[in-house]
Amino acid sequence: MSDEIIFYHNPMSRARMVHWMLEEVGAPYRMEHVDLQKGEQKQPAFLAVNPMGKLPAIVHQGTVVTETGAICAYLADAFPAAELAPRWDEPIRGSYLRWMFFGAACVDGALIDRMLARPVPATTSALGYGRYEDLIDTLEKAITPGPYILQDRFSAADVYLGSQINFGMISKTLEPRAAFQNYVNLLVQRPAYKRFQAQREQLLAQMKAAG
Amino acid sequence: MSDEIIFYHNPMSRARMVHWMLEEVGAPYRMEHVDLQKGEQKQPAFLAVNPMGKLPAIVHQGTVVTETGAICAYLADAFPAAELAPRWDEPIRGSYLRWMFFGAACVDGALIDRMLARPVPATTSALGYGRYEDLIDTLEKAITPGPYILQDRFSAADVYLGSQINFGMISKTLEPRAAFQNYVNLLVQRPAYKRFQAQREQLLAQMKAAG
Repeated sequence: MSDEIIFYHNPMSRARMVHWMLEEVGAPYRMEHVDLQKGEQKQPAFLAVNPMGKLPAIVHQGTVVTETGAICAYLADAFPAAELAPRWDEPIRGSYLRWMFFGAACVDGALIDRMLARPVPATTSALGYGRYEDLIDTLEKAITPGPYILQDRFSAADVYLGSQINFGMISKTLEPRAAFQNYVNLLVQRPAYKRFQAQREQLLAQMKAAG
Repeated sequence: MSDEIIFYHNPMSRARMVHWMLEEVGAPYRMEHVDLQKGEQKQPAFLAVNPMGKLPAIVHQGTVVTETGAICAYLADAFPAAELAPRWDEPIRGSYLRWMFFGAACVDGALIDRMLARPVPATTSALGYGRYEDLIDTLEKAITPGPYILQDRFSAADVYLGSQINFGMISKTLEPRAAFQNYVNLLVQRPAYKRFQAQREQLLAQMKAAG
């Protein structure tokens, strides 16, 4: 079985986070473009991969992985040479997993609720992601003292939460605190981020040219 | 440093999922009761552990872990003798992580939206957790053919998604499909589940007696 990773992708989706992650990992991958405007994500070919009809998804060694956080966590574990996650026997792995799941369970939902201006029930302080204000403060604590979530150690948690923080500032669903801006400024200087971003811009230009 | 796990707990919270998980792991732990009615989860002592002011949380070997999915994933990795997660070099680890993150990113938010009867914007098919109907169908696919998420292999993904499915049926936020009922019926027969449930009932009785 080929070790190549199949990456179901559209640059206008959460797949951009996995794109950056794949560049950090350095493993061979092949992109399968899923045309969101044509609704390909809800058609049988893609639903056979992810019945949620959502991007991103990858297939590696015959196994489908969906959910952005899961794909980042999986790649970090499956390619240990890239040193993007603490090993299972390091106590700091607890912090790493904490922030990976915080991104999935709390940050994603909170930013999207903001983007859609969804009313938040008064009783949700212990339900769902909790309070938006607590979430922003906790997110700042996660990257303090920094420079990375695991301090001197860059990890997949920075790819995932860093992408969310970057998206939050671009979409104005997150207040532009200095800590967030400094963190993103550091991340976008990474060679893997620059490769991802250059490829993404090329793909967006191709999509635009194709109408 | 003691290897004992400190477990911040209240039986009327998501901590019940971690309680079951700790019984599956079999490692020594000590419960710290957090009184939700007194609002202890929002007071400085607990906020120093989890600034989100949410349960559950654990401290192990000096590291704080929050987020139910993260705690289950962490414990499964940190105590490999319990065989509750595939190793990092097994391809099936991709499926395991997929469903762990699906629980955190999709199931939790969807069930709580149902419970609170939150209106769902028409445009969210690719945002947040996606469509409720897709989520229920996908959840059924996750436990098919079963009996466990990783077929013959019980894992922390069953503790986490099984707890969510059980909660979904009790709270009527999930339709009572036969697949869900059969799956839960299987899980509640586990000795670790029974130990957790007996302890939980005792704690609830003590809380009731204390008024």
